[in-house]
Amino acid sequence: MVKKSVNPISNQEYDLPNHLDDKNGIEQFINHNKNKKIIVVQGLGFVGSVMSIVCANSPKEEYAVIGVDLPNEDNYWKIASINNGVFPLVAEDKKINLYFKNSIKKGNFYATYDSYAYSLADTIIVDINLDVQKKSIDNFLLDSFDLDLSSFKSAISSIGENCKEDVLVLVETTVPPGTCKQVVAPILKKKLTDRGLSNSKVKIGHSYERVMPGPNYIDSIQNFYRVFSGIDKKSIKSLKRFLETIISTDEYPLTLLNDTNATEMAKVLENSYRSMNIAFIVEWSRFAEEAGVNLYEVVKSIKMRSTHSNMMLPGIGVGGYCLTKDPLMASWSRKNMFDSISLEQSEVSVKINDQMPKFAFEFFISQYKESLKDKKVLFLGVSYRGDVGDTRYTPVSLIYDLFLSEHADILLNDPLVPFWEQKDIQVETNLKLSLKKKIDVIIISTGHSSYQSKRFIEIILKKPSLTIFDTIGLLTENHIKLLQRKHKVFVLGRGDLN
Amino acid sequence: MVKKSVNPISNQEYDLPNHLDDKNGIEQFINHNKNKKIIVVQGLGFVGSVMSIVCANSPKEEYAVIGVDLPNEDNYWKIASINNGVFPLVAEDKKINLYFKNSIKKGNFYATYDSYAYSLADTIIVDINLDVQKKSIDNFLLDSFDLDLSSFKSAISSIGENCKEDVLVLVETTVPPGTCKQVVAPILKKKLTDRGLSNSKVKIGHSYERVMPGPNYIDSIQNFYRVFSGIDKKSIKSLKRFLETIISTDEYPLTLLNDTNATEMAKVLENSYRSMNIAFIVEWSRFAEEAGVNLYEVVKSIKMRSTHSNMMLPGIGVGGYCLTKDPLMASWSRKNMFDSISLEQSEVSVKINDQMPKFAFEFFISQYKESLKDKKVLFLGVSYRGDVGDTRYTPVSLIYDLFLSEHADILLNDPLVPFWEQKDIQVETNLKLSLKKKIDVIIISTGHSSYQSKRFIEIILKKPSLTIFDTIGLLTENHIKLLQRKHKVFVLGRGDLN
Repeated sequence: MVKKSVNPISNQEYDLPNHLDDKNGIEQFINHNKNKKIIVVQGLGFVGSVMSIVCANSPKEEYAVIGVDLPNEDNYWKIASINNGVFPLVAEDKKINLYFKNSIKKGNFYATYDSYAYSLADTIIVDINLDVQKKSIDNFLLDSFDLDLSSFKSAISSIGENCKEDVLVLVETTVPPGTCKQVVAPILKKKLTDRGLSNSKVKIGHSYERVMPGPNYIDSIQNFYRVFSGIDKKSIKSLKRFLETIISTDEYPLTLLNDTNATEMAKVLENSYRSMNIAFIVEWSRFAEEAGVNLYEVVKSIKMRSTHSNMMLPGIGVGGYCLTKDPLMASWSRKNMFDSISLEQSEVSVKINDQMPKFAFEFFISQYKESLKDKKVLFLGVSYRGDVGDTRYTPVSLIYDLFLSEHADILLNDPLVPFWEQKDIQVETNLKLSLKKKIDVIIISTGHSSYQSKRFIEIILKKPSLTIFDTIGLLTENHIKLLQRKHKVFVLGRGDLN
Repeated sequence: MVKKSVNPISNQEYDLPNHLDDKNGIEQFINHNKNKKIIVVQGLGFVGSVMSIVCANSPKEEYAVIGVDLPNEDNYWKIASINNGVFPLVAEDKKINLYFKNSIKKGNFYATYDSYAYSLADTIIVDINLDVQKKSIDNFLLDSFDLDLSSFKSAISSIGENCKEDVLVLVETTVPPGTCKQVVAPILKKKLTDRGLSNSKVKIGHSYERVMPGPNYIDSIQNFYRVFSGIDKKSIKSLKRFLETIISTDEYPLTLLNDTNATEMAKVLENSYRSMNIAFIVEWSRFAEEAGVNLYEVVKSIKMRSTHSNMMLPGIGVGGYCLTKDPLMASWSRKNMFDSISLEQSEVSVKINDQMPKFAFEFFISQYKESLKDKKVLFLGVSYRGDVGDTRYTPVSLIYDLFLSEHADILLNDPLVPFWEQKDIQVETNLKLSLKKKIDVIIISTGHSSYQSKRFIEIILKKPSLTIFDTIGLLTENHIKLLQRKHKVFVLGRGDLN
């Protein structure tokens, strides 16, 4: 039987290729793009696929862009989709469609699984994922974690086995500080030496993306500040020149740091800081609930001090791909790459944030006081962030599981997620339809703007008495007062409503 | 033998009073201040003494202010000093002298130890200290902590045993959230009932100060935002009216929170947040040193994001009175007043910050590589903050002890601290004189502006080769380059200089 790889968005199936040679396809593409510099993007995920079309649409240089991913069930569909004119992710940014269509029209974006592509590249951008393996007690309490570099090392090896000796390799993947110098450079140099080539001409740089899925996806690459560094002067020079063709550096000047360890550290530090800020408010939300305090009001009164402006508001925790792992990656690096101790604060942050959906559930149970068995519970929002359709690592997943374990009858709504990939469930996108059903409990779980409309409140006000649990402070003070006339309303982090 | 209480600044000795009755003194003061509302400030420490003269200089209402403290060796000198025309603390704010002199001229500020004063008060402001008792391993690693409310309860009792039944009691002391409702109100109401008075007329409010010792001491009370609350409507109304006569509320509007638990929480939350931000950079400084990274450069590149603007720079840790205890007070309250668990992040912050001087010392040792025995080590700065003469809980104290334990020959300089009270040592205030001596090592330990002058660098450049350890990033990049021509230079959080 031919193995298949399925596009989870369109459900389109693709047969896996039966031979691993795409030399003809690649050369045909190159012939169509004569005299253009060649960029190969390794990894066609949430960063690599978008980075590819940003490169293909550079206003300053005509590039031929080849995206490379693996020809396996999990990834081949991305390659096939791109070559069939279907972008491999759904995003709220209209520029993505525009850029992708433009690259098809120009014919300067091609996808392949054949590492032959690396041999033609002037620049290779590493955008593969590097995950942290967590072990948690009861799914919530972080017990231990590890980081396995082996697939990352294989990916770098496959570059080294094929690349030109003077290629520029730009690592964009979030990596443990130390990786470019201790992992990437030694592998590439060794592979080049093995091939009888010079090992002193290769250029290696690190510059992290600050991709923010959502309506400004492209801008978060093209129009945002970048930090960069290289392992030596020629790497720095070459990377700078390259980034200037991709990013609007006139408006968002580049910042050169003196070491790849520094840029690698900057990325995980940045995300550890954010994770810590979230964890801070997670802990104080519990305390506020216990002490009958409205934490929103307290935080608002403190945030007017500029020294405290980064304070966050209560919520059901942290989702997305980065904040749930980067603090641990940082701590792993400190222990494993620099023979030191862990970053205690970073680990504590992840530990607290991971438990957040459980805290939210427990707060609900303490207020609801009834059995959830067969209760109709409507979740408003399954993505991890308001007005974004991304469900990776969404904290809603875990709170959903907890309601399920109490045998609640769950209804899902999300205007941006017709299908919840990780749970393999259809999601209702039409809010009116969701609200027409019999409902006992509404959980406001994602801050989509459609849930903030006056019309939405009016519909709920017409429903028979129910319980509303706002986990993200989406309801305004006025809406809460209106709703309280008929319904029970709880808000996470608000002990004053108990 | 008559016991004495000594003003540690002037060394002036005062005999402790041999009878505890100051009724005559108080009544004489009141007669001189007829028709004025009477404010009694309980506690004449760093907040209470300054709050007293702020009240005595209210631009909106003529108050007669009585400061009360205890007639014991530790505190009596404050009472005696005030009544002898000497303000009980040295501060860099010229307004303090002005306000104090003005109150002497008007004769509307008096100090006493007699709790008879409370019986005359329209408003009582509680400004006593409430400390956390810490147990640490090897002086640095926090092992356990506790909070003893008994002296706080006695102080509140002595108010209740004397006060008018309709007095306004404003608690300014940083207290565990829950204190006004669970401790202050029950004690006052019980004492009033015991005295046969109404227990429903007393007004109790909480509003925390954000006093910042230094050149803007007075302004940090008078011209800054305040959060306030009261245990009932009449308390809120009365406290609001009072605060409006003390604070420039037109420019800095008051914020009313709905519960005293909320204002009490706001204060410790505010300081926990700051403590956490400091601890964050403490941990990453170590990591940066290990990884050869210039953390200053990294933080600068990240802080340009408004979501990350509260990030701090490396330093030798947190000093002062508040940040070293308030996060623990918060955690104590959550456990003891609300039967819950600890605030893990707050406790971890204090734990990390407490170790900072040790980390700094260890970093120095790893770089210096020689024995410190009999080495001439000059500390530049002993106070806990640049351009402030406050040595309470200064982190310099602990790093000083560590150098001492290695038998270094220590010289101290601080332009604002002629005498280091807690260590009972004279400090040289003249920088030129300090630098004239033979020096092997200079530790830049406090960010006083006089250490940032060009002249200072020129003098050091003329000295024979020595080692400079900047623990707070005071040296500019140019100064470092200049100094490196002749001297060894290390900077905390800068692994790139190793």
